[in-house]
Amino acid sequence: MRCEVVAVGTELLLGQVVDTNSADIGERLALAGIDSYFQTRVGDNEERIATVIGEALRRSDAVIVCGGLGPTQDDITREAIARALGVPLVRDAAMVASIRGLFEARGRAMASNNERQADRPQGASFIPQVRGTAPGLVCPAPGGGVVYAVPGVPHEMQEMLERAVIPDLQRRSGSQQVIVSRTLRTWGVAESALAEMVAHRVDNQTNPTIAFLASGIEGLKLRLTAKAADFDEAARLLDAEEAELRAILGDLVFGVDGQSMERAVAELLTARNLSLGVAESLTGGLVGARLAETEGASAWFKGSIVAYDSGVKFDLLGVPEGPVVSAAAAAAMAEGACRALKSTVGLGITGVAGPTTQDGQPVGTVFMAVAYGGATEVAEVHLPGSRPLVRQLATISLLDQLRKRLLKG
Amino acid sequence: MRCEVVAVGTELLLGQVVDTNSADIGERLALAGIDSYFQTRVGDNEERIATVIGEALRRSDAVIVCGGLGPTQDDITREAIARALGVPLVRDAAMVASIRGLFEARGRAMASNNERQADRPQGASFIPQVRGTAPGLVCPAPGGGVVYAVPGVPHEMQEMLERAVIPDLQRRSGSQQVIVSRTLRTWGVAESALAEMVAHRVDNQTNPTIAFLASGIEGLKLRLTAKAADFDEAARLLDAEEAELRAILGDLVFGVDGQSMERAVAELLTARNLSLGVAESLTGGLVGARLAETEGASAWFKGSIVAYDSGVKFDLLGVPEGPVVSAAAAAAMAEGACRALKSTVGLGITGVAGPTTQDGQPVGTVFMAVAYGGATEVAEVHLPGSRPLVRQLATISLLDQLRKRLLKG
Repeated sequence: MRCEVVAVGTELLLGQVVDTNSADIGERLALAGIDSYFQTRVGDNEERIATVIGEALRRSDAVIVCGGLGPTQDDITREAIARALGVPLVRDAAMVASIRGLFEARGRAMASNNERQADRPQGASFIPQVRGTAPGLVCPAPGGGVVYAVPGVPHEMQEMLERAVIPDLQRRSGSQQVIVSRTLRTWGVAESALAEMVAHRVDNQTNPTIAFLASGIEGLKLRLTAKAADFDEAARLLDAEEAELRAILGDLVFGVDGQSMERAVAELLTARNLSLGVAESLTGGLVGARLAETEGASAWFKGSIVAYDSGVKFDLLGVPEGPVVSAAAAAAMAEGACRALKSTVGLGITGVAGPTTQDGQPVGTVFMAVAYGGATEVAEVHLPGSRPLVRQLATISLLDQLRKRLLKG
Repeated sequence: MRCEVVAVGTELLLGQVVDTNSADIGERLALAGIDSYFQTRVGDNEERIATVIGEALRRSDAVIVCGGLGPTQDDITREAIARALGVPLVRDAAMVASIRGLFEARGRAMASNNERQADRPQGASFIPQVRGTAPGLVCPAPGGGVVYAVPGVPHEMQEMLERAVIPDLQRRSGSQQVIVSRTLRTWGVAESALAEMVAHRVDNQTNPTIAFLASGIEGLKLRLTAKAADFDEAARLLDAEEAELRAILGDLVFGVDGQSMERAVAELLTARNLSLGVAESLTGGLVGARLAETEGASAWFKGSIVAYDSGVKFDLLGVPEGPVVSAAAAAAMAEGACRALKSTVGLGITGVAGPTTQDGQPVGTVFMAVAYGGATEVAEVHLPGSRPLVRQLATISLLDQLRKRLLKG
């Protein structure tokens, strides 16, 4: 089974938008064991889109066309697929009603343009939309091929890919072999050091294979990929290798697959029946925002005092007058957060995101504190990169400090 | 003059690396006034690379092949170009000596593999390497076409593109035309409604052309693209069309090009010498984090009280006991933020991010308030999507409410 990706949009050719959709689809196809040898990007031109779809169908069994399903005049993927397949475009009355209903549910009137989103090439079926107003398409092609159309908005594309396209491709491929991946997520070690720690596992493993993925602000990932006759066997292979790697890596591993650092922290707090309050400065609210992202956060997350201005640190958090980029200020912030937010655990973070130095401290200097059980632990880190990167790295560093503190009991 | 981009690398197809090179090359070609209608990605397979180069040469006058010039066995772009052009590969003794010199200058011995980097298709000339060890290639094709090869390492690619490829393309095209884009960023209107508002401009414009770009949580963009003899003339064309569109869209336009919503807000606050304090609930700190992202925020951003827990709303912000997802709570939060953070402007936001209802309000219900000049304005919005999306949309909606309030004076 071979599947190609065609990304549609003049903005992609002009470099105004980087095409991350093709990379995401490519990764997902690889995990599903579907070969993908070509990806094409083409502008908003019906003839050229139709041409590349035709070329892709000659080389491959399936084509995923991404983008150009919106309601405006330059959204012409529907027309181009019909042209490539040599069939007329038909307007689907039931889908028109469905889209109108989506607008009415939001208290808005549907523009007449949106009716175009109910067009489909004759013989094609819709993939119902869950997010957005654009349905996807499954279009049978002569000779047993298939063309899928999915929206270009990344979260709409991903949802539709996972729910409809990948399962349909797997059904068509009839393959019995499953390929399953599992990702161990680590924080606090450089890639070269991580590679040395696990070198003997990587060198000697063929199933699962082990690959390193650098994920920037989310740390380093080890991806295990197992091939097996069924999901149970794949899970057994992955369980065994995960146990070997965890024995080497210990608490450097903070999560598996989609388990984020904040999720790991949330589970530890919940298990210990603790509540958390935060006082943050350079991160501006990022720490609170990440914590609040976890479902069920209201059970343990009290809130965060973003004391960007020094006066707020003194008034609301009881930070002593003096330099606010200091270990003493971070400790006072963590303790002040406990008091002001009435939490059993407090976090404090202050530092220099840049572009200029502050309190004589260079850009990237960050002091972080955890107040818990009558003691306050402070750590100092020096983070690289631009202003946004320093803020993101500071946020996950603080959450990791809390995670390791809670693991100590 | 038409030029295509072919990016080589199995890692691109597998989604392990996002192909930013093609976007960068596409942007540079557009600025040079060279049309680019297709981009292709292909894995490290000689036959398939040769095939896509051949197809590209049939459709276009020039092809830039990016990647696969390294010294290892899977770097086969040189072989593939020779195959596509039907000429043998020859090893260039002078280039072998040059590469050996690069290694010796760094005090290292050249591996024999690196000799492969001195291979060129017969009839081709080298683009000397300035960074890295891989020279580029300029390969004449039958019928007057040309194939360029540049490295896949982004900074090596960019240097070679700028120094050698773009000037060579412009010489061949004999054209002096420039293409310049400008993007107007809007918030608060659906794509279909925006399209209807500006339909008569879109339908009647050929230079600049006007295109719609949906940017999800960052709103909708209108991209104007002008072709002209020089940059001054392009700027005049863009200025004139921007004025027409602004007359139609009014304050729906919040920024131009890279100007974010928080940047727009920062400029208004700074111009009016105001300071800002925030009280946020469902957004968890996202409002503060976006505001703090703007350079110079410390001049006007006091901070944010993330009152996730209801008790914090009552204690720190003076929200009256009762339902906390309400217009009254949002107003009290905005006013409480002014008091607690000693700011001249206050924002309050409370709502239901999901997954379950709260205070009898459905998921997506958000109340937002701006306290300024002795009055507090409250707005209620109903936002679609998942929990993270609701939180992001709520954040930018609140900032837009503040922007419009400040514009009123």
